Order: sequence, then structure tokens, then C-alpha cells
Amino acid sequence: MRHHELLARLAEEDGGSIVLLVLDGVGDLRTAEQPRTALELAATPNLDRLAARSALGRIVPVAPGVTPGSGPGHLALFGYDPTSPETDIGRGVLEALGQEVEIRRGDIAVRGNFATADAEGNLTDRRAGRPPTEESARLSAAMQEAIDADPVAGVEVAVRHGEGHRFVLRLRGECLSAAVADTDPQETGVPPVAPRAAAPEGEATAAKVAEILERLHRALAGEPKANRALLRGFSKLPDLPSLGELYRLRAGAFAGYPLYRGVAQVCGMEVVPCGKAFGDLVDAAAGRRGDFDLFFLHVKQTDMAGEDGDVEAKARHLEAIDAELPRLLDLGADVVAITGDHSTPAPMAGHSWHPVPLLLHAHHCFVDDTDRFDELQAARGHLGTLPSMHLMGLLLANAGRLAKYGA
Amino acid sequence: MRHHELLARLAEEDGGSIVLLVLDGVGDLRTAEQPRTALELAATPNLDRLAARSALGRIVPVAPGVTPGSGPGHLALFGYDPTSPETDIGRGVLEALGQEVEIRRGDIAVRGNFATADAEGNLTDRRAGRPPTEESARLSAAMQEAIDADPVAGVEVAVRHGEGHRFVLRLRGECLSAAVADTDPQETGVPPVAPRAAAPEGEATAAKVAEILERLHRALAGEPKANRALLRGFSKLPDLPSLGELYRLRAGAFAGYPLYRGVAQVCGMEVVPCGKAFGDLVDAAAGRRGDFDLFFLHVKQTDMAGEDGDVEAKARHLEAIDAELPRLLDLGADVVAITGDHSTPAPMAGHSWHPVPLLLHAHHCFVDDTDRFDELQAARGHLGTLPSMHLMGLLLANAGRLAKYGA
Repeated sequence: MRHHELLARLAEEDGGSIVLLVLDGVGDLRTAEQPRTALELAATPNLDRLAARSALGRIVPVAPGVTPGSGPGHLALFGYDPTSPETDIGRGVLEALGQEVEIRRGDIAVRGNFATADAEGNLTDRRAGRPPTEESARLSAAMQEAIDADPVAGVEVAVRHGEGHRFVLRLRGECLSAAVADTDPQETGVPPVAPRAAAPEGEATAAKVAEILERLHRALAGEPKANRALLRGFSKLPDLPSLGELYRLRAGAFAGYPLYRGVAQVCGMEVVPCGKAFGDLVDAAAGRRGDFDLFFLHVKQTDMAGEDGDVEAKARHLEAIDAELPRLLDLGADVVAITGDHSTPAPMAGHSWHPVPLLLHAHHCFVDDTDRFDELQAARGHLGTLPSMHLMGLLLANAGRLAKYGA
Repeated sequence: MRHHELLARLAEEDGGSIVLLVLDGVGDLRTAEQPRTALELAATPNLDRLAARSALGRIVPVAPGVTPGSGPGHLALFGYDPTSPETDIGRGVLEALGQEVEIRRGDIAVRGNFATADAEGNLTDRRAGRPPTEESARLSAAMQEAIDADPVAGVEVAVRHGEGHRFVLRLRGECLSAAVADTDPQETGVPPVAPRAAAPEGEATAAKVAEILERLHRALAGEPKANRALLRGFSKLPDLPSLGELYRLRAGAFAGYPLYRGVAQVCGMEVVPCGKAFGDLVDAAAGRRGDFDLFFLHVKQTDMAGEDGDVEAKARHLEAIDAELPRLLDLGADVVAITGDHSTPAPMAGHSWHPVPLLLHAHHCFVDDTDRFDELQAARGHLGTLPSMHLMGLLLANAGRLAKYGA
């Protein structure tokens, strides 16, 4: 039996409420050059007090040594097996959902970049000088017009701008396939790759994409910088059972960044509009108190500081979160879990495979012998080290939402 | 390869002897109200001395967050995957085996309760005022007589009383199905549920059960209290390979309570008659020294105290066990493991999902840095935290009973 099916079999409709606070990339490293992690550096009196009443442990997103992207990292937190083919969400779908482009079963979502090519057609900048979002909106509207003026037979195309140099394409039609290779060559000095099938079933769709690109480039022809559109991550909506169906609960997502709203939507959560700061997430959650059994809050800033290689900034973000933590606890949830979707150690300036610290507070969580929440204390905690996909079982159990298994 | 198949492939016929002492529900919690667990509270000098020469660790019965019943909890200890459909043992079978009712392949076992209904036929007490066992024996004999006097075509029925308000039915015949729903409505103020199929293949059997119930109620018609029979847990014997076949050893079970004798029998152990106290189990095991390679001893009292929410009583039971522990060690087994089938934390007054402490003593077990056996020491022990079904591999290996895997 797959893990989420076991939980689904045991899930009960009544029970306590759960807050899952994901501090993106929170886990960090001790190295010769960086003797203390961000969690160790940060002064976090509120988190310390919570730790003294909580159980600690660690989660492993995919498998030891495997560095997850944000999609698998989050799907595992929600109880799905991130190595199962059915949980494979394409970047196009994530981006489209995050930009609030409606994606139905059968639609193809594609992530686009504006890029610059020289007179020979060779790429000189794969991000077109990073245009501001307003510029991206203007360019996207122009591409939509060009498509609408001269539609491609059998494919309805929607263009939506993203942040900066990004945009999203949605293709809707009969029998479209996501088996189309990226047109982004991932390097400059060469022309974009012509659309081609990544597998035989993608051939018809690749031909349509070539026609679509021809319209897009017509709209961009006069642009000084953004004169090319690069396409990546052709993908369809995965057919995942929703969290509500699986675990018989109402799940709300509070995330300030598109990708995480997208993941939440794929899992069938209601995505609640909110700002980007931790305080904004808490405000939004407080405004919907009583509407959800599971509140998923996603904080991006810890990951961004890690990606910048700035452990001090990461610690300052943790301190800012700590200052507002009491307001999160005031929501009165029966279960509070604080963890990450993966580690983003500052010395690596990127996602990593390292286990992610986990704090779990609930009435029957087992109170650990510590008053700090950091990587070392987490490694010694009562919860042990678990696959991330096993966290959901702990959350449901601590909320009194899982029936006994077997007689 | 399934886990027990891997072990079976490596198991060797010669090797040392193993004592597996299961302290039912031994694991407990630290909470705000209960700062120390039963293992922490108990004065256990013998266990302490053993811990100082042992390796500690923890086992997770089914999966994090999943609270097991006694069936899955024990099957996992014996190396079977408790989430595999083939290990799904119905309560009827467990109860019947525990009451020493012979169950063959194809038989249906059912757990029964005596209950009280009022003049309108609505249940007023689902346990008929909890009759003493002797009363249950009289009522069961009357039901058997009523069936024998007017047999139901095609079904041979055996009735056996259990403890208190419980009895067991065994149905034997051609093509009987266990897909029959419970007739116990699980509430009072309503009549019992009429027998009905839980799946299409159960329809013929459900009709036979209705006829059987009619005979049973004929026997109970004049009773002031026990005037109804409620049926639950229709089930067949699972088709498990025996421990002897799998691991090439002779396994003996020493358990004072029916359910655990039942599980042991399902796994092909010889069930040795014995009393209920730990000392009785040790006496019985000492009397069969040399007859078995694996001695499974099951102590129920720790679980009962946990279920009563009485951490002090649980600690006192642990102290009583500790006092007799030297006699268990005098059996001279090469491997001694002490653990539980699940945790039964006193603050929860019931089974729970929390990891179960494990002590393993053997010549090559790795001696841990502690002289206490409790939840925190176990969480820090050399054995780490394992699925319960992996314990059997450790026992066999420490007994020198597993060949090297691969060249």
C-alpha cells in the first residue's frame, strides 16, 4: 500500500487543527568556514520556549543525498511519495498555477523566458536584461494579441506574464502532449532550439508549438532586448488525489510566492491571497481561523538568504519570524510543526540534500530535553529522522485524526 | 523482495537462541502534566545492569503517526510487513485462536458480544451488564444446543465462550465468505443491524448468518439480560508463512492472554500453556528450555496500566518484572530483546503511534553508553530507530542465524 493510501484509509473527519510552517531552506551547515548555522546564530527566544515544550527531529525530503526542487520538497511534506511518477509536477504547471492561470486536465503549461538574440539569431542574454515585471506584462499582452489575430488551428493559447523576464503559456486543445523538449539551449552564443518532440507522442504538439512561436516572435520582432521567447517545462497537471480527499480535512495555503501557491493548488488546497512577509501570512491565517483544519504557511525569505550564501541574513530573517511567532501560536492550533521543504545551506548557496530540522508541538508530542531548535538538537530529538512524506502521518496523529490500524 | 523473504533467503538452521520479551504498550510520554515516563519512574536495578551491557534503539510498529492494533504490532515484531494485505488478521480469527478454537483454512471466525435489548428490540446495553465468564459459558452452551437441534443447511457452527460478555463463532462449510458486515451497531437505542454482505461475494454467507442468529436468539429468548448476540469481525485465517518455515527455527509462545496466543498461532509458533504474570511466563519458558530457538514472552500488564492512564501502576509493573528479570536471563539465551508491540502512554490511556524503546543484548550487539533503559536513552542508542519489522533481522543476526548476503 502506498503511504498516502495507508493514511487515507485511517483518516478521520473530526479532530484538531494543524499549522504547518515551512521555513523554506531553513536547514544549514557547520563547515570549517561557517562554524554555526543560521538557526544557531539567531536569537530566537520565542522559538526556544516553544522548543522546550516540543518534540524535535529531522526530515529527509526525498532520500539521503538527493537534493529536491521545491515541488518534490513540498509534495513530500504533504504526504505524497516524491519519487512516485504520479507526483511529477512540471515546472510549467507550477509556474502557471502560481500566476493564477487556470489549468485544466489535458492543458499544457509552459514556462517562458524573454531573451535577446543578435542579428545572426544567436542568444546574447537568456533573460533579456531582466526586464521589470511591467515590461513583461506589456510584452505578454503583445504576444497574446499576435496569437489572437492569427490563431493556430486546434490550439487555444493563453499568455500570462510572470515576474521579471518570465511568462507562462497555456495550450488548450484535443490530444495535446507534454512530450515537447525545451527550446531554451541553456547557453548563449547559439540560437534557440527549434521545438521538437521529446517522445514520439509529442510530434504533433511540437509542430503546433513551432507555429505558436512564429506568432510570438512576430510580436517581439521590433523589441530591442526581448526579441526571443524561450520555452521550458512543457507539462500537464498531475492527477493527484487532493489533501481534502485523502485526509478528510480542509486545507488552506498561505504563501507569498507563486510557485508555492501552485504546489498547494495541485494538492487541492484553497490558496488564500496574502503578502510575502511572515507577518502577512499570519495575518491572512488569522483572518481565516476556523475555516481550515490544516494551515500551510510558506516563508520564502530563509531560502533566499541561503541562496545568496548569506548566513547572517538568514539568521536575521529567523529572528524576524521569531518576533511574530507568538501571533502564530495565538491561532490556537492543536498541532504546530515548523520545518522546511529542504535545506539551503549558506555555504552551498543553493538547495541541498541535508536533513531538515523539524519541531512538532502538540499535547502528546513527547517533550524533548532541549530549549533550542537547531540542527544538532533536531538530530538528537525524540522524533528521530524520518522521510518527509512521513510527517503528514505525525501531524494527523497528533491532531487525533488517525484511527487505529488493525485489531 | 519483501522483507521477510530476504531474511528467509539468508536464514540458517543452526545458531543461538533468542528471547523476545514483549512488554505490551511499554513506551510512554513526557508531557506538561506527566514529566516522566513509566520507564523513567520505575526503579529497575536489573534492567539497568542489563542496559549497561546492551544496545538500545527504538522501533516504529507500522509508520510514523500510525497507531497499531495488537495484531499488526506483533506481526511486525515477527518480521512481517504489517501493511501488506496478507498480514491482515481479522479480530474474529484472533479471538477464536486465543480461545483455542481450531480454525482451518476456509473457516470463518466471528467475535460475538452478549447484549441487552428492550421490549421494542432496541439495544440498552451492548455488553449485557458484563456477565461473568461462567455465565458466558452457560449462554454459549445454550446457543450451541439450539444450533445443533436445528442445524443451518451447509454450515457447521461451533460456539465457544470467551471472557466476560464475549463469545466466538466458527462457521465451517463450502465457499463461505468473510465479507459480512458487523451486526453490532456500536450504539444503544437502536436495534442490532441485520446481517448483510459487506461485498457481493458475502451475500450467501450473510443469509446463512441470519439463519444462525435466529437460532442463537431462540436460545437467548428467555434471558433477562443477555437476550441478543451481536456479531463482529467476520474473518478468515491469513495465509502467512510460519516463522519456522521462514527463519528455520523452532518458535515457542508464552502469553497469558488469548489475543497474543492467537497471533502467535497465526505465525506458526507452538503456544505453550502458562499463567498471566511475568513470573509464570518465565516458569513456563524454563520448563521448555532447549525446545525452542525463539522464546516469545508476552506481558500484558504494562499495557493495561497504560490503558488505565496510570503511570504509577505501569512503573510498579515494570519493577515487578525487573525483580524476576534475572530468572529470565538464567535461561541462558544468546540474544535477549526487550521491547513492546506499540506504546500505550498513560496520558493517552490507549495505544499510540510513538516509537517503542528497544533493548538488545547479545555478544556482538554494541554496548551503548548508558545504564538506563528508557525512551530518551533509547532514542539516542546505537540501534537507531527502525521499523518494527526489521527487528527480526537483528535478532537472527545476533544469534548467528543469518548468512552473508551476496558474494
